[in-house]
Amino acid sequence: MTMSAIRLKKNEDKRLKQGHLWIFSNEIDNQVSPLKNFEAGQVVTVEAANGKAIGVAYVNPNTLICGRLLSRNPKVQFNQAFLKKRIQAAQALREANFDAPFYRLVFGESDGLPGLVIDRFGDVFVAQITTAGMEALKEELVQTIENLYHPQALVLRNDSPSRELEGLSLYTEVAIGPLPDEIVIEENGAKFAIPTEDGQKTGWFYDHRIARGRLQDFVKDKTVLDVFSYLGGWGIEAAVAGAKEVTCVDASTFALDGVDRNAELNGVAEKVITIEGNAFDVLKALATEAHKYDVVIVDPPAFVKRKKDFKAGADGYRRINELAMRLLNTDGILVSASCSHHMSRDALLQQIQLASRHIDRNIQMFEQGHQGPDHPIHPAIPETEYIKTFFFKVSKSW
Amino acid sequence: MTMSAIRLKKNEDKRLKQGHLWIFSNEIDNQVSPLKNFEAGQVVTVEAANGKAIGVAYVNPNTLICGRLLSRNPKVQFNQAFLKKRIQAAQALREANFDAPFYRLVFGESDGLPGLVIDRFGDVFVAQITTAGMEALKEELVQTIENLYHPQALVLRNDSPSRELEGLSLYTEVAIGPLPDEIVIEENGAKFAIPTEDGQKTGWFYDHRIARGRLQDFVKDKTVLDVFSYLGGWGIEAAVAGAKEVTCVDASTFALDGVDRNAELNGVAEKVITIEGNAFDVLKALATEAHKYDVVIVDPPAFVKRKKDFKAGADGYRRINELAMRLLNTDGILVSASCSHHMSRDALLQQIQLASRHIDRNIQMFEQGHQGPDHPIHPAIPETEYIKTFFFKVSKSW
Repeated sequence: MTMSAIRLKKNEDKRLKQGHLWIFSNEIDNQVSPLKNFEAGQVVTVEAANGKAIGVAYVNPNTLICGRLLSRNPKVQFNQAFLKKRIQAAQALREANFDAPFYRLVFGESDGLPGLVIDRFGDVFVAQITTAGMEALKEELVQTIENLYHPQALVLRNDSPSRELEGLSLYTEVAIGPLPDEIVIEENGAKFAIPTEDGQKTGWFYDHRIARGRLQDFVKDKTVLDVFSYLGGWGIEAAVAGAKEVTCVDASTFALDGVDRNAELNGVAEKVITIEGNAFDVLKALATEAHKYDVVIVDPPAFVKRKKDFKAGADGYRRINELAMRLLNTDGILVSASCSHHMSRDALLQQIQLASRHIDRNIQMFEQGHQGPDHPIHPAIPETEYIKTFFFKVSKSW
Repeated sequence: MTMSAIRLKKNEDKRLKQGHLWIFSNEIDNQVSPLKNFEAGQVVTVEAANGKAIGVAYVNPNTLICGRLLSRNPKVQFNQAFLKKRIQAAQALREANFDAPFYRLVFGESDGLPGLVIDRFGDVFVAQITTAGMEALKEELVQTIENLYHPQALVLRNDSPSRELEGLSLYTEVAIGPLPDEIVIEENGAKFAIPTEDGQKTGWFYDHRIARGRLQDFVKDKTVLDVFSYLGGWGIEAAVAGAKEVTCVDASTFALDGVDRNAELNGVAEKVITIEGNAFDVLKALATEAHKYDVVIVDPPAFVKRKKDFKAGADGYRRINELAMRLLNTDGILVSASCSHHMSRDALLQQIQLASRHIDRNIQMFEQGHQGPDHPIHPAIPETEYIKTFFFKVSKSW
């Protein structure tokens, strides 16, 4: 049986040739291969305008990104052996970087597996499928993970709203179980207990690991404020690295219960404080009470989720960083992060610079962080990069 | 005695207010304060168009950047006490980052000392003055360093061609001596002997230290090729970290003699090889002979020194990275750096991506490096950032 083929318009193979993996619906030659004739998730040969096969993709006629390239070899089969090979390649990159099996094992397009993310928490695996093409191989995926890792548990957290655009239902399923109530992971010398039922996204944000490790170099005997702390990734690791006192701020009771649990787990409960509330409000209140810290970390959720949110989001980054700088002791350290792909590095830096001038501070950026090596960046797909982290020394104006 | 004042045209104070330190000659109100009335190196009050004093700068009527802001406080004196305070602040940032006194102590505008760079090699200091304004305080600078550090030696390497634009002569002077023939520094667990007479620039490039340290995580039992090796910063540190074999390529006999000396010094001479020649030619020859390496580092001198060199320079980066990728074993690591400010991060990434597609490789960027914390970045002055380093896993095309 030969695969169906999808034909690109003239010159529309250029981006693919430069390394990108996405095909947009307006790039299809609808005379030769009408998109509507394809099923969501169908695997097809991709042809350039001259009919030459240039690869294999899965398609979805109902989405703007109507195809995602799986291989540049038109003979490749998208099956269980394919999944195994790609997952093993991804694992090799992680093992070159990390000593213990706590990492994002698969990061979508960057690992040649569009529509799939897998986080690994030791023997517990949490996968997210976001496309119809990947959903079609769901059973093979479960089998591949079973064969490769014999895991204690595998959860399919297929509840991302973006699935609806793909025509997929939203559900969470324990594919291999039972799932323990709590997972304990290790990161930068700290342990974290992660509840498995209510966590945000896949339960833990591995993406800041390298930057959090770098922070540990600067916290000995310091007072630290961790804003948007979630389960305490920055704060608890600072406490473990010798910080004098750590204050974690988050709007969620669930998150701060986690901070308390993790402080206990690492034997640093006596120096970890939590404050529940909206970060902007809490920081204003702390300033009113003349609190000061040696180190402040600002790692908010994405303020710019879509391009059109840019202006309001940029303003949010400026305001929260200004509030943070107000709370710093002289020559203190501000660590400022953004996980918004649509908030570019330069745009974020500009907002923080504006904030510093507004309150007449001098800032020096002495370190930069990025998403860790278990979130590799595909150089042809800017969308695969989203994290930026800046370390500033904040002084009185010169 | 009141200082002379220089008046800005309307709205030309905006960039300064946003944090920048430079004043361009076309921003001066020549009716109120004709530039030609000022002397090169003169210290002046800077006034906004409405006459309000907004800071202190030194000026040079003969250069495009006709003024560099020293302070936002119009009452500040530019004198020995000023130098001492700024140098001590710079030192504090370095000491927060490094255990031993081997670093760039002062990085110009980023440390509030425009026109001055100081490298520290233990008890030996090498300073570079690049502006008439800073040259005017040369004696005070020597005295400040003497008082703060009682150094074994202080060299003024005032031989940068950019001095001619400032109306300054080019010279090298041992201001405090005698200068030893060789300095030994430590970096990432390796020692480096640096000859003091003939070295490039100030003798050692501290700026890649953090990235070189990160490379050490990936070299155990690997074969490593260090292209544009200079004295072996990347290569020797890889050897010390357990690389199986290291090959250093440089066009300079002086540099490769240094590699040999440093290999001896670290007890890794038996696994360090040097090849003298033009990097492009050497890499082509190695490819012809079917040599392969597990890790290749490409850290060339600036290919884009001026904006107008961009096209040729970008092409150079593409070609050298393509040659490097050809020499990699499957799933090898390419470390690719640029120190060209005018070659942006995104532009460099694009060239490497193009190279990878040209020879049908798949690349994943898993780590990024920057100039180290002893080269802080002034967020309002993009010119203070110049280094970018990418780590790629290079695989067969998917």
